[in-house]
Amino acid sequence: MNLTHFNDKGRARMVDVGDKSQTDRVAVARGYILMAEKTIETVKNGGIKKGDVLSVAQVGGIMGAKKTWDLIPMCHNILIDGADINFTVDSDRIWVEAKVRTTGKTGIEMEALTAVSVACLSIYDMCKAIDKKMIIGDIKLIRKTGGKSDFSLGE
Amino acid sequence: MNLTHFNDKGRARMVDVGDKSQTDRVAVARGYILMAEKTIETVKNGGIKKGDVLSVAQVGGIMGAKKTWDLIPMCHNILIDGADINFTVDSDRIWVEAKVRTTGKTGIEMEALTAVSVACLSIYDMCKAIDKKMIIGDIKLIRKTGGKSDFSLGE
Amino acid sequence: MNLTHFNDKGRARMVDVGDKSQTDRVAVARGYILMAEKTIETVKNGGIKKGDVLSVAQVGGIMGAKKTWDLIPMCHNILIDGADINFTVDSDRIWVEAKVRTTGKTGIEMEALTAVSVACLSIYDMCKAIDKKMIIGDIKLIRKTGGKSDFSLGE
Amino acid sequence: MNLTHFNDKGRARMVDVGDKSQTDRVAVARGYILMAEKTIETVKNGGIKKGDVLSVAQVGGIMGAKKTWDLIPMCHNILIDGADINFTVDSDRIWVEAKVRTTGKTGIEMEALTAVSVACLSIYDMCKAIDKKMIIGDIKLIRKTGGKSDFSLGE
Amino acid sequence: MNLTHFNDKGRARMVDVGDKSQTDRVAVARGYILMAEKTIETVKNGGIKKGDVLSVAQVGGIMGAKKTWDLIPMCHNILIDGADINFTVDSDRIWVEAKVRTTGKTGIEMEALTAVSVACLSIYDMCKAIDKKMIIGDIKLIRKTGGKSDFSLGE
Amino acid sequence: MNLTHFNDKGRARMVDVGDKSQTDRVAVARGYILMAEKTIETVKNGGIKKGDVLSVAQVGGIMGAKKTWDLIPMCHNILIDGADINFTVDSDRIWVEAKVRTTGKTGIEMEALTAVSVACLSIYDMCKAIDKKMIIGDIKLIRKTGGKSDFSLGE
Repeated sequence: MNLTHFNDKGRARMVDVGDKSQTDRVAVARGYILMAEKTIETVKNGGIKKGDVLSVAQVGGIMGAKKTWDLIPMCHNILIDGADINFTVDSDRIWVEAKVRTTGKTGIEMEALTAVSVACLSIYDMCKAIDKKMIIGDIKLIRKTGGKSDFSLGE
Repeated sequence: MNLTHFNDKGRARMVDVGDKSQTDRVAVARGYILMAEKTIETVKNGGIKKGDVLSVAQVGGIMGAKKTWDLIPMCHNILIDGADINFTVDSDRIWVEAKVRTTGKTGIEMEALTAVSVACLSIYDMCKAIDKKMIIGDIKLIRKTGGKSDFSLGE
Repeated sequence: MNLTHFNDKGRARMVDVGDKSQTDRVAVARGYILMAEKTIETVKNGGIKKGDVLSVAQVGGIMGAKKTWDLIPMCHNILIDGADINFTVDSDRIWVEAKVRTTGKTGIEMEALTAVSVACLSIYDMCKAIDKKMIIGDIKLIRKTGGKSDFSLGE
Repeated sequence: MNLTHFNDKGRARMVDVGDKSQTDRVAVARGYILMAEKTIETVKNGGIKKGDVLSVAQVGGIMGAKKTWDLIPMCHNILIDGADINFTVDSDRIWVEAKVRTTGKTGIEMEALTAVSVACLSIYDMCKAIDKKMIIGDIKLIRKTGGKSDFSLGE
Repeated sequence: MNLTHFNDKGRARMVDVGDKSQTDRVAVARGYILMAEKTIETVKNGGIKKGDVLSVAQVGGIMGAKKTWDLIPMCHNILIDGADINFTVDSDRIWVEAKVRTTGKTGIEMEALTAVSVACLSIYDMCKAIDKKMIIGDIKLIRKTGGKSDFSLGE
Repeated sequence: MNLTHFNDKGRARMVDVGDKSQTDRVAVARGYILMAEKTIETVKNGGIKKGDVLSVAQVGGIMGAKKTWDLIPMCHNILIDGADINFTVDSDRIWVEAKVRTTGKTGIEMEALTAVSVACLSIYDMCKAIDKKMIIGDIKLIRKTGGKSDFSLGE
């Protein structure tokens, strides 16, 4: 099995997608940030005010999706058609789900995964003064369509 | 309990650290990317060549640490004195540990956590053609020193 | 009336333009920076040398247009086909007009407005040592074509 | 009168501040975005939900302040100690006031002015689908302290 | 002979390519970094380990190609379809050759030249502690295809 | 001889400068872009207008110096105190000399070399429509002071 990101000398390259055609692609990724119950409470209580933790994380995650090409070394720069993030607040964690869409020659899953990661890191940043034991986890691709083959985690 | 990142109108702000003094600060963060055994094998075999997956992820993670201020909405821009990343390859996952140091008025834990996240995302990007079920997880702060209070996860 | 930039939970999203077709779009924006008469004189006199205030602002504004997607949280990244800026020096202010063109699924007015803003801020930066009372104002869209509907301010 | 941003050949330079000492500096800037009354109403009504227009603009403005060095050609990169933005919603316009602080060799007024500009542009972006005649104006420095000389607009 | 990057007032503009059609474009650029023989030896010996100088420079050069639009003032932002870099180690210099591909309205030669420049600068950075007399040179376009006219240096 | 940019596993790291003290550092770098005589003539003739090739390259080079930390993988981010670029136009080439200054724990030579490289690439971009055989060369450090040891090329 070979990794397409390496040339015949074994060095990294940006894979050539020049011969692929543009298709409508969607990817959904998900993850969570685990935190103490009282941290969750503080986030929730802040949530009734304008400008709460989750709306800052929402902006951070969407802007992060747009920077994916600049963060991930071998990632192509692509035009994002749309991006959205949804949070679900559980008793001990906040679930983050990002859906990103493009019309392009190569996929959008890295943008969705980056949006989730940056949203989680943004929450971490705002809560770290009161909770130093938070854990970001379970970041994975849920589904993608529009590429060479569709994928669904089948949860 | 209040979140210091919000002003008296409940809107986000970049916390004022102007009255704090500069100290020597170090943070260590850790996480993993879980993958199929044959993906691990492919990464390992690629590893004997120059320019392997992990050295690209190393560069991605270190450059990511330098971009933390631009990714995390309320994060301060700081000068990084040094950054290093170490990988430990297990049978079903690759552990990523980042250590970052600064001399500054505010901490460096977000830089360490961002380095781990971007390194994991970089590995994901290079392996996603052969494994769509990878999971990035357990990203957390292991220890930090030099701030108002030291922290150690005590593992 | 609803703002399309918010999802059904009231949180910000990058509007999905995936179903729109690519069209040739042009936007023109304008604004000014008001300054003391002797500041205007200094800018004008500098203007006979190479590398004057306005040519630095020209470069700043055009490079700023290219960064619009990274500055404005919910703005799409698009490919700019061309960008130009023109200055008109009055007795008490410098008018800045930017014209930007794209072939894309969504408009170019933010790029034109950002070009004007950054050009004005660049002038401000270079003149602030001699004039602290400058005012940037009247930044608005003059006309745009190529989107769902054309617009002209009808001045 | 000379502009310090130009060298003896008349070409732009980044002014040398190497011999200046670091001081605690604060700058406040203000501006507004003028809009139709029904646009103001829509912003206000959205404002009762989480993630409203103004909290996105708040994040945009603060992140914009951090990018000032990269936007304004001859601007120094500095470390921002803190940044905050306040909005005042009038019947026909939204006032934006930014306060930014640094400990550095050179001033922070460009960061405050850029925060105001980017916050206004962010509001524009989210409201432009319902109002194409908005005007961004009256962006100016209100006061600054900590530099060679203090300044106050004396309103 | 006129330079197309200047408008009728003699100020710089981003050339309007809106009327051009998208074509498949490839550019190859080359250059070298000259260094002391013992520096070459150190690079070579490091080369048997993972994460050597050249694989860091490979990543730097490819990521640099993606930033070309942000570095070169009047350069268009384009979507890169693929990028690869090859090194040839001579007794007194390392040759760097970059090949970049796009499907776009305007060329890709600046991306190839920037990739070579940034790869050379990255090598310089890692070797400068042991060699302060390195020279980066002979950076030029070798060939390009897919634009208005093809070009080959005919070496 | 060891390269300090690699850890004990042979992977790249950002060298730890945390224990070094801040000093006043200056670096000067130089290089040229070789071009056809008629290209030189066109640049010179454009030079009598405002916004000529060299003033765009001046801005590009200075802004490039500020981005060095983001371009060169293992480079530290530092605060630039001042930057200037001078051009000397010969019959067949344009010499570019950059002088950059910082107060920091680590040197400024990469910023000077990057300024020269980006200025040369900017000139290349604006002249490439009329000359495809330009060569960027002889980019080297001329002198630096303020670090562990001073250096002068002794030309």
